[in-house]
Amino acid sequence: MRPNEGLHLRLLRLLRDRGAVSRAELADRLEVPRPRLLAEVERLVGAGFVAEAGMAASRGGRRSTMVELNPDMRFAAVDLGASSIDVEVTNGRLEPLAAYRESADIRSGPKVILHRVNEILAKARTDEAYERLDAIGIGVPGPVSFRDGVPVSPPIMPGWDRYPVREMLTREHGCPAVVDNDVNIMAIGERYGGVAHSVDDFLFVKIGTGVGCGIYLAGQVYRGTDGCAGDIGHIQVDAHGPVCSCGNVGCLEAVFSGAALAKEALVAARSGSSPALAERLAAAGTVSALDVAQGAGEGDVTCIRLIRDGGRDVGRVLAGLVSFANPSMIVIGGGLAHLGHILLAEIRSVVYRRSLPLATGNLPVVLSELGPRAGVAGAAVLASDLAFGEAS
Amino acid sequence: MRPNEGLHLRLLRLLRDRGAVSRAELADRLEVPRPRLLAEVERLVGAGFVAEAGMAASRGGRRSTMVELNPDMRFAAVDLGASSIDVEVTNGRLEPLAAYRESADIRSGPKVILHRVNEILAKARTDEAYERLDAIGIGVPGPVSFRDGVPVSPPIMPGWDRYPVREMLTREHGCPAVVDNDVNIMAIGERYGGVAHSVDDFLFVKIGTGVGCGIYLAGQVYRGTDGCAGDIGHIQVDAHGPVCSCGNVGCLEAVFSGAALAKEALVAARSGSSPALAERLAAAGTVSALDVAQGAGEGDVTCIRLIRDGGRDVGRVLAGLVSFANPSMIVIGGGLAHLGHILLAEIRSVVYRRSLPLATGNLPVVLSELGPRAGVAGAAVLASDLAFGEAS
Repeated sequence: MRPNEGLHLRLLRLLRDRGAVSRAELADRLEVPRPRLLAEVERLVGAGFVAEAGMAASRGGRRSTMVELNPDMRFAAVDLGASSIDVEVTNGRLEPLAAYRESADIRSGPKVILHRVNEILAKARTDEAYERLDAIGIGVPGPVSFRDGVPVSPPIMPGWDRYPVREMLTREHGCPAVVDNDVNIMAIGERYGGVAHSVDDFLFVKIGTGVGCGIYLAGQVYRGTDGCAGDIGHIQVDAHGPVCSCGNVGCLEAVFSGAALAKEALVAARSGSSPALAERLAAAGTVSALDVAQGAGEGDVTCIRLIRDGGRDVGRVLAGLVSFANPSMIVIGGGLAHLGHILLAEIRSVVYRRSLPLATGNLPVVLSELGPRAGVAGAAVLASDLAFGEAS
Repeated sequence: MRPNEGLHLRLLRLLRDRGAVSRAELADRLEVPRPRLLAEVERLVGAGFVAEAGMAASRGGRRSTMVELNPDMRFAAVDLGASSIDVEVTNGRLEPLAAYRESADIRSGPKVILHRVNEILAKARTDEAYERLDAIGIGVPGPVSFRDGVPVSPPIMPGWDRYPVREMLTREHGCPAVVDNDVNIMAIGERYGGVAHSVDDFLFVKIGTGVGCGIYLAGQVYRGTDGCAGDIGHIQVDAHGPVCSCGNVGCLEAVFSGAALAKEALVAARSGSSPALAERLAAAGTVSALDVAQGAGEGDVTCIRLIRDGGRDVGRVLAGLVSFANPSMIVIGGGLAHLGHILLAEIRSVVYRRSLPLATGNLPVVLSELGPRAGVAGAAVLASDLAFGEAS
């Protein structure tokens, strides 16, 4: 082991998270001897990672000079959804300088989608007049081999299996890239700048078109043996439930997800059991999960019941996971998080009733704070860690 | 960070796992410069952890001297069950020198049980004529605060809540002690010297009087926020099932465990649906889970069905955990593991059918190799790691 291995990483992260810092404060905070710190800073200035940032206010003795991340540093954060592309370009401190969002069908395949990503990044480069990207982080809606930087047998991404996403982005943009699962990057974002800030053991549950779970254990994303940990959408909640796209029966995702809720809403609209949904169906020709949320907000009893039933199913799965993993927080995110407090109340009720008291005594179950930005926020964190790691 | 932090730990573990090793080989294996290694060995010899062990065979140059763990080193390993006390005393290499097993009711409380443990250890000291213990590892059948060395709200251990087990053992025996959950120590034992040898991510599922799960993630035991991770006995498998001792309905433990199976066996014996069990009931006045195993071995259809039903329930819970945690192995242990291949076949069938193909493509589901010794084996590993850690 090399003494002080990882000093560069700790130093660059500190500058990312705190902005300009004096050399004196850096030495204190990183707990390294002053000469060693100064040498490392000089090395990082020479390598283009760090820049001078003027003089610090006096602390009584000699005034210490400030340093910050090179202001030209740029990261690209990409969040591919089932039907959307989100891109942000940030500076070294992960402040977004430009954001783009557009619809796109992930089933168009990697060539079409990644070509579009490249076009967006080219436009961002013109818009923001930066020279080059330092790293790219990208999330995709399916299982990923984190080590290899490729999707692995992703159920809703035909044509993407083992497609060299990382290699392609690296070649195109001449910078390192990192590929992860969409739910993992949301969990990373929420831990970096959201409600799970500095929480070491938590579950991020995404309820959107599908259902998935990002897992933080001991301060690290846990990805499992094959990179598919957190695939909770296919846990069975009803042995007599509907058939799922995976071929099994009664999976959580088949019972409660954006797709499942829209299907149930259509039935409720047609049968006349929900006046609110019937009205929306008549007006728009279709109903969605969003209509259920709005109907519930207006007090429509059927809409409220649909959300409660779903919350109960999610809660039953989470109760089991709480007993198993004993996390210190559960964050609910994804498109259906806008079902809000009715959903949350039902989930909490089941989790608190069904899990061991010791595990739920102090277990907040809360909504995502970053909402639709969670994914890009996490992708930017991954990109910066990757770039900083290469500064050794 | 201190350069080469943990060298003493790596060195002592190597001697524990390989026996006598030459200084030359130690330097190679630990990848440290020869002078630094020699200094560390001298320090550990001086501190009484390491002893000279003669000359190694020549490797061509100067002959290198061998070292080994101090042959006087002794560890005590204790496994407290719901109704048993298991104790082993080992040497530094974790080879058992003495083993004791007796019945005891954990509900007698900590004073009675730990007094008995102390008596057994006093006897072992006389039997084996050693001077002192270097460390004690103990497992208890309930949740534990690993940091504090105390049981926390253990459901089947009245009187043990926050009882200072570690402190009491340390005071009595004048050596450090470590307290863990009984299922965790079985998982540790199985990874050290059993079927999960050097597997980094696996679940150890104990099916005995109760049901629990030891979790290894990234090569470490995962204990969760409150130390109660792995409490899978109270995951609901049947919303209309029997009431559990925890107050909820249809918990796995209420549906399938030693206690639940004995109850069902009694019903089957009385109703006449199982000739094998009726015969045993008539002969012994009672029936147990063991009778079900023997009945199944003789081809009794009801006994086979009871085991299959239980295996299906366990399998459904494990399928969910496989989707969540994506482990690379599942080990089945505990008293009911002797239900053998009928149980295993049913668990496998459900797990392989219900979980994501990516997660089960290469997922062995196997029986514990160490059987009833798994617990003490793991407690000895914990004790040795604790003692070695204090050699810094």
